[in-house]
Amino acid sequence: MKPGSSPTSTGQATLQQRFLRIKSNRVFEALVISIIVLSALLIGARTYQIDPTWSKVLTVLDYSVTLFFLTEISIRFWAEDNKRNFFKSGWNIFDTLIVLISIIPMSSGDLALLGRLIRIFRVLRMISIIPELRILLNSLLRALPQLGYVVILMFIIFYIYAALGSTFFHNINQQLWGDISISLLTLFRVMTFEDWTDVMYETMAVYPLSWTYYLSFIFFTAFAFLNMVIGIVVNVMEEENRKAYAEAHQDDPTLSDVMAELQDLKRRIKNSTP
Amino acid sequence: MKPGSSPTSTGQATLQQRFLRIKSNRVFEALVISIIVLSALLIGARTYQIDPTWSKVLTVLDYSVTLFFLTEISIRFWAEDNKRNFFKSGWNIFDTLIVLISIIPMSSGDLALLGRLIRIFRVLRMISIIPELRILLNSLLRALPQLGYVVILMFIIFYIYAALGSTFFHNINQQLWGDISISLLTLFRVMTFEDWTDVMYETMAVYPLSWTYYLSFIFFTAFAFLNMVIGIVVNVMEEENRKAYAEAHQDDPTLSDVMAELQDLKRRIKNSTP
Amino acid sequence: MKPGSSPTSTGQATLQQRFLRIKSNRVFEALVISIIVLSALLIGARTYQIDPTWSKVLTVLDYSVTLFFLTEISIRFWAEDNKRNFFKSGWNIFDTLIVLISIIPMSSGDLALLGRLIRIFRVLRMISIIPELRILLNSLLRALPQLGYVVILMFIIFYIYAALGSTFFHNINQQLWGDISISLLTLFRVMTFEDWTDVMYETMAVYPLSWTYYLSFIFFTAFAFLNMVIGIVVNVMEEENRKAYAEAHQDDPTLSDVMAELQDLKRRIKNSTP
Amino acid sequence: MKPGSSPTSTGQATLQQRFLRIKSNRVFEALVISIIVLSALLIGARTYQIDPTWSKVLTVLDYSVTLFFLTEISIRFWAEDNKRNFFKSGWNIFDTLIVLISIIPMSSGDLALLGRLIRIFRVLRMISIIPELRILLNSLLRALPQLGYVVILMFIIFYIYAALGSTFFHNINQQLWGDISISLLTLFRVMTFEDWTDVMYETMAVYPLSWTYYLSFIFFTAFAFLNMVIGIVVNVMEEENRKAYAEAHQDDPTLSDVMAELQDLKRRIKNSTP
Repeated sequence: MKPGSSPTSTGQATLQQRFLRIKSNRVFEALVISIIVLSALLIGARTYQIDPTWSKVLTVLDYSVTLFFLTEISIRFWAEDNKRNFFKSGWNIFDTLIVLISIIPMSSGDLALLGRLIRIFRVLRMISIIPELRILLNSLLRALPQLGYVVILMFIIFYIYAALGSTFFHNINQQLWGDISISLLTLFRVMTFEDWTDVMYETMAVYPLSWTYYLSFIFFTAFAFLNMVIGIVVNVMEEENRKAYAEAHQDDPTLSDVMAELQDLKRRIKNSTP
Repeated sequence: MKPGSSPTSTGQATLQQRFLRIKSNRVFEALVISIIVLSALLIGARTYQIDPTWSKVLTVLDYSVTLFFLTEISIRFWAEDNKRNFFKSGWNIFDTLIVLISIIPMSSGDLALLGRLIRIFRVLRMISIIPELRILLNSLLRALPQLGYVVILMFIIFYIYAALGSTFFHNINQQLWGDISISLLTLFRVMTFEDWTDVMYETMAVYPLSWTYYLSFIFFTAFAFLNMVIGIVVNVMEEENRKAYAEAHQDDPTLSDVMAELQDLKRRIKNSTP
Repeated sequence: MKPGSSPTSTGQATLQQRFLRIKSNRVFEALVISIIVLSALLIGARTYQIDPTWSKVLTVLDYSVTLFFLTEISIRFWAEDNKRNFFKSGWNIFDTLIVLISIIPMSSGDLALLGRLIRIFRVLRMISIIPELRILLNSLLRALPQLGYVVILMFIIFYIYAALGSTFFHNINQQLWGDISISLLTLFRVMTFEDWTDVMYETMAVYPLSWTYYLSFIFFTAFAFLNMVIGIVVNVMEEENRKAYAEAHQDDPTLSDVMAELQDLKRRIKNSTP
Repeated sequence: MKPGSSPTSTGQATLQQRFLRIKSNRVFEALVISIIVLSALLIGARTYQIDPTWSKVLTVLDYSVTLFFLTEISIRFWAEDNKRNFFKSGWNIFDTLIVLISIIPMSSGDLALLGRLIRIFRVLRMISIIPELRILLNSLLRALPQLGYVVILMFIIFYIYAALGSTFFHNINQQLWGDISISLLTLFRVMTFEDWTDVMYETMAVYPLSWTYYLSFIFFTAFAFLNMVIGIVVNVMEEENRKAYAEAHQDDPTLSDVMAELQDLKRRIKNSTP
């Protein structure tokens, strides 16, 4: 904290520093992770049939977890030098929302379900707390846009085949080819090879040549998918290679340096021997 | 446009220039893409059960799309300096055919079906419009011939196993091993692991050792497939490496240059010190 | 052909040269490939229900193919300078055996089946004729020994799990876990994810914790398999890189050359300036 | 063995040396491997229904194998110069335990089963005997920690989806979504594409939009899995590249060496030409 950056009294500044010290503490971090794990276990326990006594224990524990999270978020917030920066991080907003919503008492009907949902997504706080997971997720997300055009191409293949499927096989099986959205789902199933021959044999009974439809679809999607995977591999490896090369040759002279040195030498010799 | 390349009047030349300006316009391109997406949505909407009123709306929209496409192709055609070059691009021919055929009124029976098919393939215009998709498709197609011999080898494996299968298992299940083409389909199913044990257990009831047939087939095809994938990966990466290397060392002196410089230096010293 | 290498008369030598010319002829090669394809089609045709007239045509065509193959092998044999070298190639022996056996008239019962089998394996002659396929197959076979130890490790995993499976699940399903060989087949099925949950749910009814058996097996085999694939990829790419590097820097001077040159220069300067 | 390192009599020392010679003998190693294979075959034979006579033969052979293993471990132990080092190797402890436990006579009920289990794990001695397998296993295990965070991320995805699944689909199918642990198993099944559409169609009958649950799960896990695989490939290849580079350029001068030499040369020229 730079001196003078906050116009608060010395007393409050000490509090902020104390919070900052707590926030950076390794024991505190481990405690937060354990509480998130406990919170996850509580969610799991709720899915079992439990007798009322234990159910009460779970409810009490759940309130404690919510209370702990509220305290933790507050510490994080007060530890922040510039309060506005706190909400510039998407993860902080996510954490605050998840905690604030789970404070609201929701016990009747649909609201109770919403309350349970919010509690489930508290497990995602794990990612917001552990920096390595955050980095991993970011690198995963950064790889996505590169796939953009392959995904569009794949969707065009899917859409054309779904349109063909629901045009021709519409009357054969309404459950599989009723309309274009159902057909898209059926084609995704065919792509995962999940009982795809059952789907095929059914249409082959009416259109004996319909195997061409399935086989060409499988070839196109498999080929596009393969190219997508290869694309990612090549991209990742190139980046790694560039990084590794840059690291290895950071302080090394380049051939251009050697060349410049040689030219300099030549000039000197030229000058020295008239 | 080079001056004098077309012997038309100044008025028409302005028209062509105007068309060229429209064609190159980013807004126009976005509009064309939106209309193709709309056209795809219309195809999708047709696969749902819709009441007559909406059906009429769809028909009108469909005609509008056809009209728009006709206008767009015309603009592209007139914007072309040399009209013959227009038909040298496969995509232009494809676009023109798709649009021209969809103008022909087809409403009765089989022709109506053909009309619907043509409309489905209009979605492929997406590839012809977006340059990135065209490049992607071309690079996919260029990777195919390299796989030629692996595909032949795989087909030989398939053919031999299908001949063996329809010879031995012919009487066990006519649906799966009736003749060589059905056997080829069954083997493709086995390769995708789709209920392959059902097929195997059936023949093992008659030939207890027939598991060797399936396992050897799976090993051969999996191995050939794996090699195909590795082949593509290696090819793609080599090309990328070569490109990256060429880019990185474009203007760098090579060791040969350094060597030449040294030799030159040596010669000078030799001459200067008699 | 070196002169005097065969002590035959000039007449026969001309015959041998003529055979050699036929053998090396591109048209002749194309003819042989077409005849092999025809032979494959005949095999395929036999798997269909055909009326006696066509069956006779097939038999005649089949005899013609056999005759052609006999002639072709003879030409290859006579074209060979040193007759003993002919049988040093495994493919030549394979070709000769396949053709000789198919001459033997086999029409009754089991022998007829053997005759059909031999005819099926004639398709493999495709590999012996097309050099690119022979090279591809050789490179595939050369990749196998590198996998030796991973295959042994995988077999040990399979064997231990099969022994455990047939010990514990023996009485649950005799068809799947009856003895160790059936268990090995069942585990291969589990590895291909083919209805593996049906197998698991059945044993979980008796041993509720048996899911650990299946999940650990899937993890172990998937991990070993993955490492096998990566091992091949890395091997292939390394070899390619080494080749590419060697090609690119074939005539380039190395840094050692530059260093030697520099040292030489230094020595000269030292000597020239006393 | 260094002289004087063990204060035993010369007689025992000779015995130790003799044991060391036996242990290092290639024939002895081959014999041990054969006996382990025999032991594996005995385990396999036990899973078949065999008549009492053969059963007795198996029991006798089994005792002989145990006796042989006991002798072999003893030789290894006595061959060791410093007896304490023997138990520093995890594999030696494993070997000793497996052999010692299989000596204990266990024939009644549960103990007999334990005896059989111990015999099955004797196959793992193969890994402890063959050094190449030991190296392979170690390199596999060393690759695991790198996957740590991807595995955690994947488990978080699994846990959230399982909690959602058992919350919403609880009443649809108790067998698949009864509680969170069953749901985790069901999701693993969905990830292997094993009859996943049956699971989906069942829940879609109640929640028509539940396909989003399955598709998003498949995309997330497939994407995380893909990144895991790519991560391993990149890691392995980088390590190989570094090794290959280090090997190739071990004794080569670097550009820095060339530069130093040039600077030295320049200094000399400067000095020689005042």
